[in-house]
Amino acid sequence: MFAKDFSHLYSDECNRRTADKLGSLIEYAKIPNISFLGNGLPQSKFFPWQSISATSPLPPFNEGIESCDKSTDTFSIQVMKNDNSNSQAGTCGEKSFNLAKGLQYQPVVGQQSVLDFIREHLKLVHEVGTNYQDWDVILSLGNCQAFDSILRTFCNPGDYILAEEYSFSSSILTAKTQGVQPVPLKMDEHGIVPEYLIELLENWPVNLKKPKLLYTIPTGQNPLSYSLSLERKKIIYDVLQKHDVLIVEDEPYYFLQTGEYQQKSERKEVKFNSHNEFIDSLAKSFLSLDTDGRVLRLESYSKTLAPGLRLGFIAASSAITKQLARYNTMSIMTPSSFSQIFLNELLNSWKQEGYLDWLIGLRHEYTIKRDGSLDFLLENVPKQLIEQKIVKISPPVAGMFFTIELNAKKHPNYTGDKISIETHINEKLIEGGVVVAPGSWFAVQNPEEFKHIVSDDSENEYIFFRLTFAANDLPQIEEGIEKVIKVITSEFQ
Amino acid sequence: MFAKDFSHLYSDECNRRTADKLGSLIEYAKIPNISFLGNGLPQSKFFPWQSISATSPLPPFNEGIESCDKSTDTFSIQVMKNDNSNSQAGTCGEKSFNLAKGLQYQPVVGQQSVLDFIREHLKLVHEVGTNYQDWDVILSLGNCQAFDSILRTFCNPGDYILAEEYSFSSSILTAKTQGVQPVPLKMDEHGIVPEYLIELLENWPVNLKKPKLLYTIPTGQNPLSYSLSLERKKIIYDVLQKHDVLIVEDEPYYFLQTGEYQQKSERKEVKFNSHNEFIDSLAKSFLSLDTDGRVLRLESYSKTLAPGLRLGFIAASSAITKQLARYNTMSIMTPSSFSQIFLNELLNSWKQEGYLDWLIGLRHEYTIKRDGSLDFLLENVPKQLIEQKIVKISPPVAGMFFTIELNAKKHPNYTGDKISIETHINEKLIEGGVVVAPGSWFAVQNPEEFKHIVSDDSENEYIFFRLTFAANDLPQIEEGIEKVIKVITSEFQ
Repeated sequence: MFAKDFSHLYSDECNRRTADKLGSLIEYAKIPNISFLGNGLPQSKFFPWQSISATSPLPPFNEGIESCDKSTDTFSIQVMKNDNSNSQAGTCGEKSFNLAKGLQYQPVVGQQSVLDFIREHLKLVHEVGTNYQDWDVILSLGNCQAFDSILRTFCNPGDYILAEEYSFSSSILTAKTQGVQPVPLKMDEHGIVPEYLIELLENWPVNLKKPKLLYTIPTGQNPLSYSLSLERKKIIYDVLQKHDVLIVEDEPYYFLQTGEYQQKSERKEVKFNSHNEFIDSLAKSFLSLDTDGRVLRLESYSKTLAPGLRLGFIAASSAITKQLARYNTMSIMTPSSFSQIFLNELLNSWKQEGYLDWLIGLRHEYTIKRDGSLDFLLENVPKQLIEQKIVKISPPVAGMFFTIELNAKKHPNYTGDKISIETHINEKLIEGGVVVAPGSWFAVQNPEEFKHIVSDDSENEYIFFRLTFAANDLPQIEEGIEKVIKVITSEFQ
Repeated sequence: MFAKDFSHLYSDECNRRTADKLGSLIEYAKIPNISFLGNGLPQSKFFPWQSISATSPLPPFNEGIESCDKSTDTFSIQVMKNDNSNSQAGTCGEKSFNLAKGLQYQPVVGQQSVLDFIREHLKLVHEVGTNYQDWDVILSLGNCQAFDSILRTFCNPGDYILAEEYSFSSSILTAKTQGVQPVPLKMDEHGIVPEYLIELLENWPVNLKKPKLLYTIPTGQNPLSYSLSLERKKIIYDVLQKHDVLIVEDEPYYFLQTGEYQQKSERKEVKFNSHNEFIDSLAKSFLSLDTDGRVLRLESYSKTLAPGLRLGFIAASSAITKQLARYNTMSIMTPSSFSQIFLNELLNSWKQEGYLDWLIGLRHEYTIKRDGSLDFLLENVPKQLIEQKIVKISPPVAGMFFTIELNAKKHPNYTGDKISIETHINEKLIEGGVVVAPGSWFAVQNPEEFKHIVSDDSENEYIFFRLTFAANDLPQIEEGIEKVIKVITSEFQ
């Protein structure tokens, strides 16, 4: 089975992209005995780095990864410049690439050994290639850059896309900046409501262009921390298939699946007896359901390794990754070689098993942080605020965030405008020494031309604040939550 | 003096850009005793790198940089993760930033100490800040990404820009892909002909939008290797000032100024007695002439250090760098931390003097390569081909390239279409085992609506091929040139 052709969805810009003939010259350089006077490549002898090295923690992280920072259970990699034989270039043998090659101009899609590792990983976790075979991977600079490049490949100014009604504000702004209008989809506590999506698409105004793609954060949704169930994913996939809409799944939090929150007394530590057990515990992705080549999966190493790597990838049909590569040739080229080298040496030293060990360790740490934060919150928020439904708390199953919902109508200052209550409380929170993110900042507004068609949010009395348990240790998080509770209690007394 | 306001030239996309409120939260994190539950920052203890290090050659490179590759005259830098005190984070003391900070989300414009070094360098070389004071620097991923971001900040589809009639094809394609039309400017052996520019702008069709910017490669122009004289730069600046056009100077080859080619017998080795003597030898940039904040200067470390760094910068008025930063927030964020760390440690270890030493060394190496290539070419190309003006050779004064011009009309197959001769000869060159770049690949075509207004190139009988002396050692270059001469001689016998 092969991916369907989605070229009818390409943007005008994408259709104008042509390959630079100059880029094709480099292929000749590989032919033996050819004299290459084609491209302006600086010689590697003038690269002022003779060798680089790094020290990293060693799997299987039996002591957890909390202490890996100070652990002496480490290994070092070293990558030399001048080894002509790739097998001695670095610590990972033939999977290493030396600095002479590594610091030269690179293939736009990424270094082969990095891509190979990612492909293998995607097969393990998402069984990619079973539904359709012409899939591929291209490196990105993280999901922001990935989404920017996707929008420019599929959307023209004036086009519509679909997005969760509360979504990552930066992605929404990126679309709007390009003149692309996000149309919000209603959510409940399980994410996008499929019935709403169906109704919206069935009744899409005939005078308006159909949406090009759905932008969704299925796992540990930002800001609401919901995870979309497999059942809903299947329905949504079918609906979007019917309406010829692409799916962009933005998955920075995929490996932060902390599972259902259990009350402290009933809590059992989750232990995985094998890597397969861990993989089986993970949410089924849109990518794994994809039979058409309709899904573009965005993953980032920002949350699993480090944001400063500025590295992630897009998995999609090879027809689509080719178009994205063309765009990259005219903008970013490819991620930094130093980032690619360090990622390559780390992953190929760890191997697939070691990387999964790391992810299991990360899940463990985030579960402790999630549980500790929610325990503290639920124990300390005044019971009557919960009973009177002034405060609603839905423990997250994945991601870095949890939310506190507040019934704006119950606030003494309420005069019909719940956002002014949100602003007021946010000011009080800052005065109280705690910084959180107000929910309205994430709201995707209905475009003007949709306002009469779809129901708005006005009957919903709740506002919310997004809090993260990612950025601090538990004692600091508890301190922050305590400040939040103090403000809320004083505001709604 | 302050920069002029160029906001009337912003693109629609630029005018739609708004700051993400979420980004502003991070400012609060710096306040003492604040509980930060705002942004989803992963904790640095989960970054799987405890330390990184690198070994580099040590200035003043008295033995030249040719052998720096194998030199034992080196120094090593090491950057640790966990040092809380910045002064112990790396080898460069307080100019270092540790991995805990370095691998976290970064300021979009770049790390302070990297920017400080670049600012200092620009003051030394271009006396920036004398003509107007509110200038600034933002890091880029190299000049391709820099130009992409500038086009998206100033140009709408349907806009015009100005470019040299032969120019870097990738930049021209980037503009065209965005629906922006480059209008070619006539050149002679000193670059853009100012009189042509004046006439073009004075007679710009009233029904067409005025061009937004000039895209120029002033030093070691690609593909023609010309360098624009100071005299012409002043005239061009004045003309563009009058017509409200910005100047984007793309300067990847700025430090490859190899000077006038001297015949072998008359050649004297250029020695600089001081750094100032070297700086004085460099071409005056548009940036150094800029009184309005009209110039955006693009520099890249791809040619001076290594392409794999994926790092460069844009120097411009701070009002403009702010707009570029907004775009980066929605796409690349900022260059890789590993690249920034290694660049920072290298430059701050070398210091300004050491970096200038490196650049002097680089100039020396490229001069040897330029001289050797041209010596070989001029000595071996049959004299009668030169005398009959079948072959024209203009030795370059800067950059990585030289060209061989051929009179297509003198080719036996010529039937009025010189490009078919170019294609034919290019095929013969590849058959002959040498890869060069055909000149027509760099041609900027007049847009349809300009064809009746400006003269075209049809009276020019010459075609040309661009050759580089960058990518190989001299013996290999000579081998390539020999193959080229063989083909030319056989084709025009």
